[in-house]
Amino acid sequence: MRKITLVTGGVRSGKSSFAVSYAKNKDGRKVFIATAVPFDDEMRKRAENHQLERGKLFETVEEPYELADAITRVHSMYMITVVDCLTVWMGNLFYKHEQNTGLISAEIEKFVTALNCVQSEVILVTNEVGWGIVPENKLAREFRDMNGLLNQKVAAIADNVILSVSGIQINIKGNRL
Amino acid sequence: MRKITLVTGGVRSGKSSFAVSYAKNKDGRKVFIATAVPFDDEMRKRAENHQLERGKLFETVEEPYELADAITRVHSMYMITVVDCLTVWMGNLFYKHEQNTGLISAEIEKFVTALNCVQSEVILVTNEVGWGIVPENKLAREFRDMNGLLNQKVAAIADNVILSVSGIQINIKGNRL
Amino acid sequence: MRKITLVTGGVRSGKSSFAVSYAKNKDGRKVFIATAVPFDDEMRKRAENHQLERGKLFETVEEPYELADAITRVHSMYMITVVDCLTVWMGNLFYKHEQNTGLISAEIEKFVTALNCVQSEVILVTNEVGWGIVPENKLAREFRDMNGLLNQKVAAIADNVILSVSGIQINIKGNRL
Repeated sequence: MRKITLVTGGVRSGKSSFAVSYAKNKDGRKVFIATAVPFDDEMRKRAENHQLERGKLFETVEEPYELADAITRVHSMYMITVVDCLTVWMGNLFYKHEQNTGLISAEIEKFVTALNCVQSEVILVTNEVGWGIVPENKLAREFRDMNGLLNQKVAAIADNVILSVSGIQINIKGNRL
Repeated sequence: MRKITLVTGGVRSGKSSFAVSYAKNKDGRKVFIATAVPFDDEMRKRAENHQLERGKLFETVEEPYELADAITRVHSMYMITVVDCLTVWMGNLFYKHEQNTGLISAEIEKFVTALNCVQSEVILVTNEVGWGIVPENKLAREFRDMNGLLNQKVAAIADNVILSVSGIQINIKGNRL
Repeated sequence: MRKITLVTGGVRSGKSSFAVSYAKNKDGRKVFIATAVPFDDEMRKRAENHQLERGKLFETVEEPYELADAITRVHSMYMITVVDCLTVWMGNLFYKHEQNTGLISAEIEKFVTALNCVQSEVILVTNEVGWGIVPENKLAREFRDMNGLLNQKVAAIADNVILSVSGIQINIKGNRL
């Protein structure tokens, strides 16, 4: 049965931990789609910490760009799919498409369409990045806009949306998980 | 009958779309007070997109500075007034008054007093801008402070306050709209 | 009886005012632990404004670093202790320990352990700082991370957590205060 949950919030608000521990409590096979491809020590350390937290219960798939294909390919083989996270994926697309927002919008559409077709449970982590002062840098402004639009589109088709604040999960759409 | 609603949230969280679609569902004449005066292509594009979204149901009034006067002048002629947005208005005041926070505070008081006297329905859009790292720039810090104070003052007299997150509206004061 | 409340939110969202006015309504002796040591005119002005707001109902203790000791020492002598704020304390620790995150983590553990042992009412103010664009500056990224982890740890042992938005208090853990 299709059940899509979006977990959003600020950095270090417990989003990933919540998604992983929620998935751990489910029976059956689990898959973790990581969008972060560590390219420096800081990121590698984060990725390793997250992997330790997940333990051996999850298959891990690394997919920095083709998230629509990855979801479509793997979700039916697992009871639950964790995607962590959409904001890092957006960052990867900005890099790959050299900030071409037309191409990035097309990727968002493709992803949301694929997500809307899943037949199993998927929990996706994203970030709130637009609650600060307007950045001076045009790229950062465009990134905030695209990330916000992506979050809106995913939230619109999600069965549940959770806002994570200081490790507390607030149910803002759907029933309490 | 007086009914004031404040819609706040991060950038691209669906605040304006919500305010406009809420107003569209009301009978009678509608007015949209735009505080943004487009001075470059990026802003003009945003303004045009917003205008397309509104369609022909709204009269549009552009008022970058004298928001108290604009509200007082127009609200009684319409069933509902949309103000979009207070944060851009704050930015305009910072520019006009060269960051003189005394003058800006006086403008805020004048506006809140005028708003408190309306006799019809008004829905105002604002932004959360103070949930990031403290900016190094003093002007940005002052802007966050003034925007936060303005939001508090408007929320205090509002009948409803809505926090918009990833396109989901959370009722944080008053009854569900 | 132990009752720990964490008040979090963006800058100028009414966090401190709420904590102080909540404490004012309690009978008995009150103490205010200020972590901010004003080192310039901007901070001194903020501190003075906050002190005026509190009036003479509170004893004030200034403690920029040893927050675990301060809590342990004072809380049992007062009916309610206000701590304002944890984010400034984090900033002080970053300065004192020259960004050594190991030492800062140890201070966080010490503080959370001390807080968990209180036998009276404590209300703590903190800040959400991780809802913006990823800062380019590594120190700012580490600060966001540590502040987020601290907030999570305090929220986990708190009886109540309140998110303050535009002066509106949202109960996100525990009963309405």
